[in-house]
Amino acid sequence: MKKKDQAPHQTLVDRQPLTGSRKIYVPGTLHDIRVAMREIVLTDTERKFDFVNPTEVNAPVTVYDTSGPYTDPNIEIDLKKGLPRLRESWILDRGDVERLPGSTSDYGQQRAADASLDHLRFEHIAAPLRARTGANVSQMHYAKKGLITPEMEYIAIRENQRFDELPADDPLRSQHRGHSFGANTPKGHITAEFVRQEVAAGRAVIPCNINHPESEPMIIGRNFLVKINTNIGNSAVTSSIEEEVDKAVWSCRWGGDTLMDLSTGKNIHETREWIIRNCPVPVGTVPIYQALEKVNGKAEDLTWELFRDTLIEQAEQGVDYFTIHAGVLLRYVPMTAKRVTGIVSRGGSIMAKWCLAHHQESFLYTHFEEICEIMKAYDVAFSLGDGLRPGSIADANDEAQFAELETLGELTKIAWKHDVQVMIEGPGHVPMHLIKENMDKQLKECHEAPFYTLGPLTTDIAPGYDHITSAIGAAMIGWFGTAMLCYVTPKEHLGLPNKQDVKDGVIAYKIAAHAADLAKGHPGAQYRDNALSKARFEFRWEDQFNLALDPDTAREYHDETLPAEGAKVAHFCSMCGPHFCSMKITQEVRDYAAKQDLTASQVLAHGLAEKSREFVNKGSEIYL
Amino acid sequence: MKKKDQAPHQTLVDRQPLTGSRKIYVPGTLHDIRVAMREIVLTDTERKFDFVNPTEVNAPVTVYDTSGPYTDPNIEIDLKKGLPRLRESWILDRGDVERLPGSTSDYGQQRAADASLDHLRFEHIAAPLRARTGANVSQMHYAKKGLITPEMEYIAIRENQRFDELPADDPLRSQHRGHSFGANTPKGHITAEFVRQEVAAGRAVIPCNINHPESEPMIIGRNFLVKINTNIGNSAVTSSIEEEVDKAVWSCRWGGDTLMDLSTGKNIHETREWIIRNCPVPVGTVPIYQALEKVNGKAEDLTWELFRDTLIEQAEQGVDYFTIHAGVLLRYVPMTAKRVTGIVSRGGSIMAKWCLAHHQESFLYTHFEEICEIMKAYDVAFSLGDGLRPGSIADANDEAQFAELETLGELTKIAWKHDVQVMIEGPGHVPMHLIKENMDKQLKECHEAPFYTLGPLTTDIAPGYDHITSAIGAAMIGWFGTAMLCYVTPKEHLGLPNKQDVKDGVIAYKIAAHAADLAKGHPGAQYRDNALSKARFEFRWEDQFNLALDPDTAREYHDETLPAEGAKVAHFCSMCGPHFCSMKITQEVRDYAAKQDLTASQVLAHGLAEKSREFVNKGSEIYL
Repeated sequence: MKKKDQAPHQTLVDRQPLTGSRKIYVPGTLHDIRVAMREIVLTDTERKFDFVNPTEVNAPVTVYDTSGPYTDPNIEIDLKKGLPRLRESWILDRGDVERLPGSTSDYGQQRAADASLDHLRFEHIAAPLRARTGANVSQMHYAKKGLITPEMEYIAIRENQRFDELPADDPLRSQHRGHSFGANTPKGHITAEFVRQEVAAGRAVIPCNINHPESEPMIIGRNFLVKINTNIGNSAVTSSIEEEVDKAVWSCRWGGDTLMDLSTGKNIHETREWIIRNCPVPVGTVPIYQALEKVNGKAEDLTWELFRDTLIEQAEQGVDYFTIHAGVLLRYVPMTAKRVTGIVSRGGSIMAKWCLAHHQESFLYTHFEEICEIMKAYDVAFSLGDGLRPGSIADANDEAQFAELETLGELTKIAWKHDVQVMIEGPGHVPMHLIKENMDKQLKECHEAPFYTLGPLTTDIAPGYDHITSAIGAAMIGWFGTAMLCYVTPKEHLGLPNKQDVKDGVIAYKIAAHAADLAKGHPGAQYRDNALSKARFEFRWEDQFNLALDPDTAREYHDETLPAEGAKVAHFCSMCGPHFCSMKITQEVRDYAAKQDLTASQVLAHGLAEKSREFVNKGSEIYL
Repeated sequence: MKKKDQAPHQTLVDRQPLTGSRKIYVPGTLHDIRVAMREIVLTDTERKFDFVNPTEVNAPVTVYDTSGPYTDPNIEIDLKKGLPRLRESWILDRGDVERLPGSTSDYGQQRAADASLDHLRFEHIAAPLRARTGANVSQMHYAKKGLITPEMEYIAIRENQRFDELPADDPLRSQHRGHSFGANTPKGHITAEFVRQEVAAGRAVIPCNINHPESEPMIIGRNFLVKINTNIGNSAVTSSIEEEVDKAVWSCRWGGDTLMDLSTGKNIHETREWIIRNCPVPVGTVPIYQALEKVNGKAEDLTWELFRDTLIEQAEQGVDYFTIHAGVLLRYVPMTAKRVTGIVSRGGSIMAKWCLAHHQESFLYTHFEEICEIMKAYDVAFSLGDGLRPGSIADANDEAQFAELETLGELTKIAWKHDVQVMIEGPGHVPMHLIKENMDKQLKECHEAPFYTLGPLTTDIAPGYDHITSAIGAAMIGWFGTAMLCYVTPKEHLGLPNKQDVKDGVIAYKIAAHAADLAKGHPGAQYRDNALSKARFEFRWEDQFNLALDPDTAREYHDETLPAEGAKVAHFCSMCGPHFCSMKITQEVRDYAAKQDLTASQVLAHGLAEKSREFVNKGSEIYL
C-alpha cells in the first residue's frame, strides 16, 4: 500500500483561481508590501419593476485569501524551486541575522550528505539563517521594542479585507451586535499598531520562522479573525511526499491558515523540506515524532541532545511553530490511569512513557529555557501541547487535563521572558456544557496566550463524521475566544485523510471559524453573509455559488437537479419548481405593498424604524 | 428529468439489520405491548497481561431504534400492503372512534374515483377512523383525564432504552453532570406516568393520528431524548413516488424520528398514502402546499373551505401533525419588507400574499378553533409554523419573527383548550450568540410547548454544507431545550435531496441531538459514548464501528487504508502505524505503573479519589 517516495511533479497542484474570483494586492503605507487578497466579482441586480434604476451594481466582495501565489495566474510556479521568497528582504533588512554555511544539526548534515536520497531531495535548498549572537529575531521581541514590522502591517491590512474602505452606509455592512468581541478590539479597523500591541502582550502570535520566507504573514489571536489549522503527513503505513505536497497546497486553497506536517514515516526530513518550500502559510510540527523515529520508536531512548538536534534541524528548515508537550509532568501521569481512554495524544504518551521509564521530569520541562534560546534564534513559536487532553467525553475536563494546563501557564511566562511567542493547545473531546470552562480556565491560567484547540468533539459516537461532531465544539469554543481551530477530518480515528477528506475538514472548520467570527461580532464577518443572502434572494445563482466557501460543490449540487445554464438565471429553483417559490412570492408581497402605496410613515407606525436603519435595502420598490 | 410515477416495487427498501445489531422487544407491564429496540452485540475484551481474568465480557448496548419492522428479519414486509398495524387494537379498544365508509373529503373522494390513478394508487386503503361525535381522541385529552395509554407506556420504555436496568455500578454509566436537564425530569428512569404528566401539561407531544396505526409511538418534549425530523417530498421538477417511499424508509433506518412529506408536485395525495402506509414514524405535512396545488398556485384563490377539505383529506389518510402558519398576521407582513431575504417560508409567503390580497387576517387564524375541532377528531398535532422565520443571518431575531412567535403562543392556549397537542416551529438562520434568545423567548411566549427548529444555520456562506452550518446551531438549541430538530441536508438552498443527502442530513442531526442530550445530562446519553470509547481504546474495531451512528461508513473509511481483516483486530491503526501508537503507548504506561506496584493509597495521594469513583475501570491492571 505504501507508495514509493518521489519528488513531486510540476503539474501536481491546482493553479486556477476559485471560480468568479481574482487575486488582488493591496499596498502597504508603512512598508513596501503588497497584501494578497481574493476579490469575488459579482453580477448586477436586475429590477424588472423599477424603471428608473433597473440595474443595481453589486460591488465585488474581498475576502481573506490563504491560497498563496498558486491562484495568481501571473506568478510562475515551479515546485522544484519553491515559492517566491516574499519575506526574505524584510528579514535581511532588519540586520540581525547571519547566513549559516548549511544545517548546523548533525542529522540535517547526515541527510544532506546521503546520496541515496538525491532522487527525492528538494534541489534548491537555501543556506539557513539564524539570529546573530545575542540577537532575538522573534516578532514578540520587535513588538515589545515598539517596532512595527512589515509582517505586522501585512497582517493589519489582511485582517481588514478592505472592509474598512467600504462606505459607512453600505447596507451590507449592517450586522448584529457581537457580545463578546474583546474590549481591546478596534471596531471596524485593525491597525498595524494594534497588531504590534497584541503581539507584545502575548495575546497574539505571528508564526514566521526566518527560514520560511515563502509564508504570507498571518496572526493568531482572539481579537482577530478565527484561524484554522490543517494536519497532513505521511505515516509508516501510507502516503508519499508527492501526495503530502499536493494536500498542503490543496488545504491552503480551501482556507487552511496554518499547516501541521505530522509525518511519522520514512523521509520525514525531505518531505518537510518540500512542504515548507511550497507552502504559503506557516508550518508547524511535533518534533518529538521525528525524534522518536530516530530512536526506532523507543520512547525511553529519547535524550535532550537528540531532541535539541531535531529542533535545530527543523528550525533551520523553516518550521514556524513547534508543538512541545513540556507540560506532561511525572506526577500527572498516574492521573490518567483510570481514564476511559488514557493518554491519546501521541506526544503526550511518548513523554509519559519517558517520564515513567526514567523516574524524572522530561527533558522538555527541565531544558525549557534552552528550548527558548533556540526558538528565539529563528523565531519559532511555541505551541505548548496538551499531552493529557481527553480522548473521550468521559475524560473531559478532568484533573490530569487541568493540571497540565496550569503547567503550560507557568511555561508561558518563561517563554515570554525570552520574548518567544506562545500559543496553548487544547482538547479534544468535550461535551457542549463543559466547553466554556476550558476557555475560561485557559485564559486565566495561561495569561491570555492564544488558545489553539482540536475541535473539541462534542460526542464520541460518530466515527466517520468527526469533522461534524468537532465543528460543533470548534464553533462554540471559537466564539468563546479560541484563536485557532485545528481541523478534524471525516477520517479521524479511522485512517489518514485523502485529498477529499482534507477539503471536507477545511470547509467544516471554515464554517466553524466564520460562525465564531459572526458570534463574536467581528466587524467584517457578516458582510459576506449579507452579500450571499442578497444574491440568494435575488436569484443571482452564480454570485451565490461564488460567494460560498466552496463554489464548486454549491454549483455541482445545484446542477444535479437543474443543469441547464438557463436555470442559473431563473427566478426559481428545483426545490419548489417554477410556480411555487417562496422567494418569488415574497417579491410579489413587496410589489403588492408598493402598489398599495405604503408610505414611509406607515412603515414607521408599524415600528419598523430601527429595522429600516439597520437593513436599508436601496432597491426595495416600497421607497422608490 | 421528471420520472414517471409508478407504484413502488417490493424489492425497493433495505431490509438487513445494521451490522452487529439485532432487533429486540421489551414487554410492557401496564399494557400488552412489545417495544422495539436495537441491541448492539459486542465482543469480549482480551487482557493479555491479566492471567486471572484474561477475558472481560462487554454487555450488549441497547439503543433507540427508529427503523421499524424493516430491520426485523422475522417480519414479512410487503410495501403494497403496508406495515403491520401496531396500534390499531389500542385505538379500537378505547371505544371512542367510528369507522367511516370512506374519505369524507371531497378531494379524497374524487381521487379515489379517478380510474386514471389506478396504476399508482396504494391498493389496500383501509376505511378511515374518526372520533365518535363529541369524543376527543387526542393523547392530551387522555392524559388530562389521567389515562396512561399504551402509547404512553410504549414511549416510557422506549426512552429508557433499557438503561434503567443496568447495574448502578456499571462503569459505563458514569457521566458528567448535565446542568440544564429539567427539574421535572426523573433521574435515570422515565415512567409511563411521567409521560402522561408531560403530555397533559403540554410540555410534550405524541404525534399519533388514529389513521396511522403503523407508527411506533414516540414523544417530542424537552424532558426526553432530543428528536430529529427529516423532510422528503417530490416537487414539480423532480422525483417519483417510488423514490420518496425509498427515502422515507431510508431516513428511518438512520435515525429519523418523524418524517415530513413536503411534496408539491403531482399526485401528492397518492404519494402520501404510500408513505404513510409504509412509515413506522409519525408523518407531518404542510397542508397549505397541497391546497395551493388545488388552486393552481394562486395563493389569493385559497379559501377556508378548500383548506378545511384538505385537512380532512390528510387527517383521514393518517397524517400525524400539520404545520399550519396561523401566526402570519396582516400587520406583521410589512415588517418583512426591509429584510435581506424577506419571507423564506413557503407557507409563510403564501399566507402573506393571501392576507395582502384580501386585506384581512388569514383563514388559518380566523378559523383556528374549527381547525382544532378537526385535529381532535383524529388526534393530529399542531406544528405551528414560523412563516416569518429569518432566511439569513441579517434577519435573525427581528421584529417580524418575534411578533409571530407571540401569536403562536396565543394560539397554543386555544389549542390546549381543545386538548389538541401543539409544538412550535422555530428558525432558521441565527448566529450563535442569538440562539439562546430564541429558546428563552419561545418557552416564555408559548408556555413551554415543545420547540421544533430548523437548524438554525449559524452562517449563510456555506451552501453545499448547510447540514454542518445548521448542525452547529441545532446542537446548541437542542441543549438549550429544543425538543425536535428538523434536519437540513447538504442540498439545502440548492436542490432536492437524494438518498445520500438524506443520510448525510440524518447523521448530522443525530450528532446534534446526541450532543444536546449529553450536554443536557440525559441519564442514558453518555452510556453509548463510554461504550464506544472503551472499544476504541481497546482496539475492538468492529465494536467501534457497530456502536457508531453509521457503522457502514466507519468501516469503509477504516478499510480504505487497512482493508485486511487482520487489521480490524490489530492493536494499531493506519494513522500512526504498528510501532507508533498513542493508545499502545498508553497501555504500556498502565503496565509500567502496575509493575511499579503503584498502590491505591499512592493513587489517592495524587488526588485521584474522586476520579476513581467516577471512572472505575475494572480491567485496569493497576488494581489487580
